[in-house]
Amino acid sequence: MVSIFDSSITASTFADDAIAQLFSDRAEIRAMIRVESELALVQANLGIIPTGMGSKISQALESIDVDPAQLAAGYAKDGLCVPSLVKLLAEQLPDDAGDYLHWGATSQDIVDSALLVRLKMICEILGTRIDKLIGLLRALTETHRSTVMLGRTRGQAALPTVFGLKTAGWLSPLVRQKQRLKELLPRLLVVQLGGAVGTLAPLGSQGLEVNQQLAAALDLNPSTMSWHTQRDNIVEFCNWLSVTAGAIGKIGNDLLLMAQSEVAEISFSNGGGSSTMPQKSNPVVADNLVALARYCAGEAGSMQNVLVQSHERDGSCMILESLLFPGLVCAGAASLALGIACIETVKVNESTMKDNLSATNGLVMAEAATFELSKVISKRQASQVVKEACKNAMKSGSNMIDELEKIADAEVDWQQLKQPENYLGVADQIIGEVLDSC
Amino acid sequence: MVSIFDSSITASTFADDAIAQLFSDRAEIRAMIRVESELALVQANLGIIPTGMGSKISQALESIDVDPAQLAAGYAKDGLCVPSLVKLLAEQLPDDAGDYLHWGATSQDIVDSALLVRLKMICEILGTRIDKLIGLLRALTETHRSTVMLGRTRGQAALPTVFGLKTAGWLSPLVRQKQRLKELLPRLLVVQLGGAVGTLAPLGSQGLEVNQQLAAALDLNPSTMSWHTQRDNIVEFCNWLSVTAGAIGKIGNDLLLMAQSEVAEISFSNGGGSSTMPQKSNPVVADNLVALARYCAGEAGSMQNVLVQSHERDGSCMILESLLFPGLVCAGAASLALGIACIETVKVNESTMKDNLSATNGLVMAEAATFELSKVISKRQASQVVKEACKNAMKSGSNMIDELEKIADAEVDWQQLKQPENYLGVADQIIGEVLDSC
Amino acid sequence: MVSIFDSSITASTFADDAIAQLFSDRAEIRAMIRVESELALVQANLGIIPTGMGSKISQALESIDVDPAQLAAGYAKDGLCVPSLVKLLAEQLPDDAGDYLHWGATSQDIVDSALLVRLKMICEILGTRIDKLIGLLRALTETHRSTVMLGRTRGQAALPTVFGLKTAGWLSPLVRQKQRLKELLPRLLVVQLGGAVGTLAPLGSQGLEVNQQLAAALDLNPSTMSWHTQRDNIVEFCNWLSVTAGAIGKIGNDLLLMAQSEVAEISFSNGGGSSTMPQKSNPVVADNLVALARYCAGEAGSMQNVLVQSHERDGSCMILESLLFPGLVCAGAASLALGIACIETVKVNESTMKDNLSATNGLVMAEAATFELSKVISKRQASQVVKEACKNAMKSGSNMIDELEKIADAEVDWQQLKQPENYLGVADQIIGEVLDSC
Amino acid sequence: MVSIFDSSITASTFADDAIAQLFSDRAEIRAMIRVESELALVQANLGIIPTGMGSKISQALESIDVDPAQLAAGYAKDGLCVPSLVKLLAEQLPDDAGDYLHWGATSQDIVDSALLVRLKMICEILGTRIDKLIGLLRALTETHRSTVMLGRTRGQAALPTVFGLKTAGWLSPLVRQKQRLKELLPRLLVVQLGGAVGTLAPLGSQGLEVNQQLAAALDLNPSTMSWHTQRDNIVEFCNWLSVTAGAIGKIGNDLLLMAQSEVAEISFSNGGGSSTMPQKSNPVVADNLVALARYCAGEAGSMQNVLVQSHERDGSCMILESLLFPGLVCAGAASLALGIACIETVKVNESTMKDNLSATNGLVMAEAATFELSKVISKRQASQVVKEACKNAMKSGSNMIDELEKIADAEVDWQQLKQPENYLGVADQIIGEVLDSC
Repeated sequence: MVSIFDSSITASTFADDAIAQLFSDRAEIRAMIRVESELALVQANLGIIPTGMGSKISQALESIDVDPAQLAAGYAKDGLCVPSLVKLLAEQLPDDAGDYLHWGATSQDIVDSALLVRLKMICEILGTRIDKLIGLLRALTETHRSTVMLGRTRGQAALPTVFGLKTAGWLSPLVRQKQRLKELLPRLLVVQLGGAVGTLAPLGSQGLEVNQQLAAALDLNPSTMSWHTQRDNIVEFCNWLSVTAGAIGKIGNDLLLMAQSEVAEISFSNGGGSSTMPQKSNPVVADNLVALARYCAGEAGSMQNVLVQSHERDGSCMILESLLFPGLVCAGAASLALGIACIETVKVNESTMKDNLSATNGLVMAEAATFELSKVISKRQASQVVKEACKNAMKSGSNMIDELEKIADAEVDWQQLKQPENYLGVADQIIGEVLDSC
Repeated sequence: MVSIFDSSITASTFADDAIAQLFSDRAEIRAMIRVESELALVQANLGIIPTGMGSKISQALESIDVDPAQLAAGYAKDGLCVPSLVKLLAEQLPDDAGDYLHWGATSQDIVDSALLVRLKMICEILGTRIDKLIGLLRALTETHRSTVMLGRTRGQAALPTVFGLKTAGWLSPLVRQKQRLKELLPRLLVVQLGGAVGTLAPLGSQGLEVNQQLAAALDLNPSTMSWHTQRDNIVEFCNWLSVTAGAIGKIGNDLLLMAQSEVAEISFSNGGGSSTMPQKSNPVVADNLVALARYCAGEAGSMQNVLVQSHERDGSCMILESLLFPGLVCAGAASLALGIACIETVKVNESTMKDNLSATNGLVMAEAATFELSKVISKRQASQVVKEACKNAMKSGSNMIDELEKIADAEVDWQQLKQPENYLGVADQIIGEVLDSC
Repeated sequence: MVSIFDSSITASTFADDAIAQLFSDRAEIRAMIRVESELALVQANLGIIPTGMGSKISQALESIDVDPAQLAAGYAKDGLCVPSLVKLLAEQLPDDAGDYLHWGATSQDIVDSALLVRLKMICEILGTRIDKLIGLLRALTETHRSTVMLGRTRGQAALPTVFGLKTAGWLSPLVRQKQRLKELLPRLLVVQLGGAVGTLAPLGSQGLEVNQQLAAALDLNPSTMSWHTQRDNIVEFCNWLSVTAGAIGKIGNDLLLMAQSEVAEISFSNGGGSSTMPQKSNPVVADNLVALARYCAGEAGSMQNVLVQSHERDGSCMILESLLFPGLVCAGAASLALGIACIETVKVNESTMKDNLSATNGLVMAEAATFELSKVISKRQASQVVKEACKNAMKSGSNMIDELEKIADAEVDWQQLKQPENYLGVADQIIGEVLDSC
Repeated sequence: MVSIFDSSITASTFADDAIAQLFSDRAEIRAMIRVESELALVQANLGIIPTGMGSKISQALESIDVDPAQLAAGYAKDGLCVPSLVKLLAEQLPDDAGDYLHWGATSQDIVDSALLVRLKMICEILGTRIDKLIGLLRALTETHRSTVMLGRTRGQAALPTVFGLKTAGWLSPLVRQKQRLKELLPRLLVVQLGGAVGTLAPLGSQGLEVNQQLAAALDLNPSTMSWHTQRDNIVEFCNWLSVTAGAIGKIGNDLLLMAQSEVAEISFSNGGGSSTMPQKSNPVVADNLVALARYCAGEAGSMQNVLVQSHERDGSCMILESLLFPGLVCAGAASLALGIACIETVKVNESTMKDNLSATNGLVMAEAATFELSKVISKRQASQVVKEACKNAMKSGSNMIDELEKIADAEVDWQQLKQPENYLGVADQIIGEVLDSC
């Protein structure tokens, strides 16, 4: 078990059953057999192979069990396992039915269509997960619509904000991702059937009819033009996975920063333990989100090289895709699953949020003070005097607004300037609109 | 001139004026000034700054010329040039107008909005280019709808096809890219205005109104939620560029293979020369397409890391984006421009295509022969006898169909089996549908 | 089995047993137990834990069998499996021995040291493979030291060369890689033992002594400074793997080009079959080499992000490494194994090489002719007249040298100019020196 | 100015003059002319071109000034600028000297050798910079050898450490990088001279002699075998740059975390300002270090694709290298320059380090307490009771050791357990050894 997605230690974290099973050898073989079966049924129906051969093949295939290891030698030699599989299946078909198996198809037709049948199920799972995560983030946003906290830019105390605005920020790219998924699915969920070079030559004039009926049988869209060496739809899906993982990685990154001992604004109900430090409760789930985001970024980048194919079939691109694609799908799906787990187990420490805001000693109200003072003196002067007050506050450790009151010759409601909740702009309105957009 | 996009030797190849000028320092500064100007007009209009200040600022800004080098020190210190720019502009504004410049905005609001104003123009150019390339490929496809040639899988002679089907393959992802561009544009072309932490605090309750009016003034969409640290729209656009370059890279790769001395099915009317070999005519334009595809793949992958931001502003992600984005846009635009140049200068040698097909000695008709024989004997037997005929043909150098005739005891129209144009399946129908889809 | 390295269909191609077994869950657990065992022995020896506890722990651990699945829940929660493993082992140790297990170590000490113990074995395998591949390429080079063939630049016929010079080119980076491996091994093969934050605090003043003795027991180098968050040695090794795969990918790429039907200069004794085309013999092994090179390029690039760690332990970087590293090692090892298989099964068609050279009709002698003519006329004039002869030859189809003879008014030994073997420069001398350098 | 390395606003930050000038068009052209000049001198000396032609060419070239823009059209057509450059130079040479210019060389010989001449200077600068950074980090480490601070794992308070150990961690990969640079330089600094296909055919039997003498004249190593399509040395250097930037990125990342408002253990004497927040002092220099590390990671990964070349010259790989290499070199050099600036301007707040340690209320002494208690009770029991004390301390807000004293029935020197400086293990010894290794 070389891969983190397959090891018995790690797979349950990074490749949950729902997804991993669809990438199992048996699932792949089952899907390939199903494609061959449907192909025979369609062709018998259209009179391309003898009537009766369709159901004969289809019924016989149902009971054939193929041990994946039987295909290993063939894979090594041929670069894909279909020639071996077809041979092995044909031998077990009754009478001369084996002659009508895989009629006019090329290996990649079977591999790709079998992949798509499973991708369709995966996309449904992904859709469900993104909905669930959106739902959790909606609820979190509503809960913290008024939870005042420190806004931070470049790691430095900036202005007050509310936690609900931060979570609305997490929400918004996911809402767009949902829309993007909707847009790409019809392009992605397409059957592959072109024959060796995309002409469907062995099917005579009925090629596109077979393509359409096979697509219908597999519940996929037909493909006028075969996409053996045009993988833009696959790459688009990979990019979608990576952007999803990236958007969730941002959540993880924010949570890691908020979980730091010195910040302590959030913690996890099931924090990880240490083998030597009894006090530890580690934000492991958030670590995972960041790692998955960076992993997907790299894999999606590499996948784009798969676009630069040669002619009607490119062996090296086909293998490169096999090296990258399954892990990327698992990682994207894991990012959603762990994102859900993360939001489900996060504990928000509102009082610490308030404390961290207070600990800035009013420095975060510097902009507010500047704009308030601008009502009575010029903004340039206001900025100057506020800067001085900031310096004084940092030196003295007292509240910046108090320092400002001392040096600013202006009538201002100093008390209300001390309250961060008075300087939240249209945060609430923005949150409302983001929630409405979900 | 470190970069290939800026060197006086290479820029005209890889960063045509139309695009490069929009990334020039002066264009960037001009765009930032325009954003500041429109912001002041909108705010004056809404009564946020004194009436009259809008036009005063706007008019004064028109005549201010900023030397980019004046912003270098500020950039180095602040991590973006806006603080310096605002200071420099404010000093040149009449009376106290400088006080009302950049009112309530944060630096990134200006940088991003100024970028988007230019991206809008860039996207129009990209749209025009993709249309032009689609048009050229349509024409090429129509011209070669019946140009029979060798279909190749894994570099090996496979079956006959037509050149028009290959070019239809080049066409189809570009047609999808056109659709994808249409889908992403409304998400991409969005104003940035959130203030320091996205609350628009200094604008009181009018924040979203300012956002909307500024968007309208800049001919962009408004942004309810600021996207300072949510860059999925930018990354989506980068992925679009990379997939475009990848689809065009496939064209380049096919053409490079077809241009090989031993294949010689295409050449370029303006092939590159060598400094030492008088006979050379190099397919430089196709080399460029492949290189740009791989470059964009890597840069788009790296860009996905920009998604993993921290809090309300992430300095390192902002810089990473600046390191990657402009080059990626230029490369994507160059890929389209050079793709157009490539198709405009390619010369198709139809007779060589025919010769290469003939040179296979009928081996490419092996599948056709198998299916033809299957009408009279079983497919397994047919396959066997054709394999033997292939071996004999390779040994003897005579036509495979002739060899087959010798050993296959079957009544078949051998002459028509020798004609590749009889084994093109539904190529013509597919081409028709692809052309109809453009 | 999500990953190509674990699937029963594909693993035997891409993750041979020798390597894959070292990455199996059981091998990892066994190695971790061994590290804990040696640690106890060393500490008992130094009097850190009670004398006798070392052998008691060590002996008991030998017979404990851990089912990887038992560690899955702990991994999911803690982000690594060591806390669970230690707990599970301690429970099975006699008396109070469990109290002295994992004394003063941190989880990552165990994970990394256990990895290094296995990497040492892997590096020996890699060393043997690179030696074998170098040996095969040496032999191939010697065999083809005088096999004249076409040199190609940008896919175009350039000058004559010999196949042995091409293979010497394949050889030379591998010879350098062997040297690089030798340089990096002492840096890579280093024990990890720093305790939670690298101070080895629980071991009092004996920390470095324990580190040294543990290193000796595991046959690794000691590590003064723990490298928990300094992964440059790991990344250096990854880069080595990627450059190795890249150098071998170049071999694969050249062979793919030479295997094309139109070029046919090489073929493979065990070419891959097609599910539908009886004539096919596909260069699958070469396809694999190119795919592995591109895969490793991407993974090695992503791995460099692992350098940007935080503080004394970075959970997300640790996971990112786990996502990338094992696959990269397998891929690098597979590249060597398949590179060997590739060279062992390649068949060189010398006569086709000669034919392809002849087919250029003397165009490849254009440079030779120019330099020969330069002895009697100026080089500029020579270049001019040769260019004209090239044009004439391309038009007429006759030999360029014949055309040149017609138009060049010069006394030249035209016959010897027609022989490519007369224009090989110092190819033989270069080959000799490369062979001497191995 | 598309690129961040060329823009007048940003170039002084990311592409300092020392490096950028060596990549300027004029520097490149000057270097190419120098290579042509030395080549002529060597060839005249060896009698390959007429005696006297060497100095004639060399002297004339000295005064020829080439405007880079003159080479743009040639570059676009030929894929490199050498054919145009040679033509342009030859036209300006006296008499028939132009005939003897570029004698027997291929364009890439000139491009690569001219690159290497400049890379040699760049490597000297890099060497100086890495020495300087090592020196600064040595000094910082010595200063803070006893500055106690919080060790953090996964962002959580772990154990006490000293700041000097953290900086020793920063130091150690740079010391290794210095060694790696020493190892790679002889491989990298190699002349390119192979002629069109690497046989040096036009130079007859003197090819390797010319290669050696040209190398000597350019102060580079000779190259037995030309490396036109074997770029492992270039890629090794790119990986070195990326690992360097990564090691420095780790410094930046740690400093960003320490600079956070809530942590405040360091700040920068020249922190960046905001356009709207008067209180801000942003850690911009540290942001740059992280961004450069990630940028280099991606570019170095992409560069590895350059290894997969075809035959004797691969146009697309050559262009891909041109797209990636100069930026990567600048970024690596900038990382060192900004790393130096970063360490020169960092201000360490030792008292805040102490405060942050105290703020953990003794939780960081949990491991220490466990091991101390293990002297009197079993470690399992000790671990249990310490865990309880941790919980109590978190609830009560009082010191964990005080809570422990209440519930642990053991005679322990509780006061010394409260002092973090008593639990530093062999930190000082490690620091000493790291300093000795520099």
